[in-house]
Amino acid sequence: MNKLVIFGVGLIGGSVALALKQSQAVRHIVGIGRDGDHLQAALDLGVIDEAQTSVASALDQADMVLIAAPVAQTLAILQGIAPHLASSTIVTDAGSTKSDIVGYAQHALGDRYLQFVPGHPIAGAEKSGVTAARADLFQNRNVVLTPFEQTAAPDIARVQTMWEACGAHVTTMTAAQHDRIFAAVSHLPHLLAFALVNELASRPNADQLFDFAASGFRDFSRIAGSHPEMWRDISLANQAALLEELNAYQVQLSHVRELLQQQDGAGLQQLFERASHARNAWARHKKY
Amino acid sequence: MNKLVIFGVGLIGGSVALALKQSQAVRHIVGIGRDGDHLQAALDLGVIDEAQTSVASALDQADMVLIAAPVAQTLAILQGIAPHLASSTIVTDAGSTKSDIVGYAQHALGDRYLQFVPGHPIAGAEKSGVTAARADLFQNRNVVLTPFEQTAAPDIARVQTMWEACGAHVTTMTAAQHDRIFAAVSHLPHLLAFALVNELASRPNADQLFDFAASGFRDFSRIAGSHPEMWRDISLANQAALLEELNAYQVQLSHVRELLQQQDGAGLQQLFERASHARNAWARHKKY
Repeated sequence: MNKLVIFGVGLIGGSVALALKQSQAVRHIVGIGRDGDHLQAALDLGVIDEAQTSVASALDQADMVLIAAPVAQTLAILQGIAPHLASSTIVTDAGSTKSDIVGYAQHALGDRYLQFVPGHPIAGAEKSGVTAARADLFQNRNVVLTPFEQTAAPDIARVQTMWEACGAHVTTMTAAQHDRIFAAVSHLPHLLAFALVNELASRPNADQLFDFAASGFRDFSRIAGSHPEMWRDISLANQAALLEELNAYQVQLSHVRELLQQQDGAGLQQLFERASHARNAWARHKKY
Repeated sequence: MNKLVIFGVGLIGGSVALALKQSQAVRHIVGIGRDGDHLQAALDLGVIDEAQTSVASALDQADMVLIAAPVAQTLAILQGIAPHLASSTIVTDAGSTKSDIVGYAQHALGDRYLQFVPGHPIAGAEKSGVTAARADLFQNRNVVLTPFEQTAAPDIARVQTMWEACGAHVTTMTAAQHDRIFAAVSHLPHLLAFALVNELASRPNADQLFDFAASGFRDFSRIAGSHPEMWRDISLANQAALLEELNAYQVQLSHVRELLQQQDGAGLQQLFERASHARNAWARHKKY
């Protein structure tokens, strides 16, 4: 591809830029963002070739636009793009929820919404910002695309090719499917970890409790240290699927409580065995 | 100390032996256990000085007995010790729950139960068995002792000195206090992680879900890979405190659910912020 425009050159946007440069999959990368200092840093680091503040200039002759800014900005960015979007330009994003983004695209892009191919790279790191960007961030990671039923196959293929050039495995599903899966394996665990730490932190003896917390607590609660605004946005954006997962979990937890209440050792052991077996099989199989 | 007897020379018992040898805090270490091969391995590795099958011979002239076998064996071990226990010998243990062990000691040792000083080293590792034992396993780790109200101070001090020679920080509290604290920071998180993985593993699309699980799930669910029988025993042993924690957590989770249902973004953010702040403060402060 000739020209890629990245809105939000942070960890994700910056890593895409570095990966595509490394695989020589793009000639010219334009960064655009609200923070001039961050953009200048991306330019200085050689992550982007051009820093732009004008959406019109940035989008001129662009093959692809990647929105990698915080999801709360997505609607405004799509609205800013709309007047300048040529019919040959594909827009994609990197947000953690997809049904909401699909709605924004239809709203903001009108009859050109099929030019938007929503995406979600399943990758991240402890650190954020362009200085944390790495060319190998997406190597062997999953990327989910959630195109519309009517999206043209070649348009999906262009986004898929971009992510494959970053070393990722690309899967396609509906936005609703995506949001249900990630409610279960990502959003719910975050909520559960936030809830536990909040519960303990609100106790009169919180200091004593935290003093005796060890490595099990450390790992379980790591995601409770995540960005509060980002997780507020994700929770609200995926409210319906997340509520369903929360319901299912509450039923499961009541079942565990019942086994414990009844001192049902065999029942507890069976449940722990199924979980332990599944968790260890997953760990052997996955690269995470 | 002259002679230490260790029941169960695995990760914990073996690491105590190595640490005490390194700090020259004991002259002679006797290992005793049900599995002759494991005991021979401990002897071959130089972790213990003597492998015994006779409790009478092992306890002769012993200053201290450390029970580091699986907790399910504790009562039987205490009953085996009772007929051979000299009044100058102190018995301690390394179990994860304390109220149950206190009851076993009173039952098995009769009027000599004050010679038992219950203990819980807060340390562990991914691997188990004597080959995983390390002299530095308890370095800067917490050890909780839960003596009886009438236990003689010098007897507590002997156990404290042993753990301090292993590099540990020793805290004393009641068995009930101990069990409430660890229900909150260890046993409950294990139940929550087992419950999540069990819930997901029981779905028709479990394979698909696990396929998209990433690093957040990996850390949250690590303790769901723990030993099922061990956690069945811990759950049952600490049933009362664990049920209280489960109740409190279910209330907390219903609150989170309510915020989400109401689309209360400010409420969610506040809760996530408190959790995130507490988790990150803990991580900065702790060495785990």
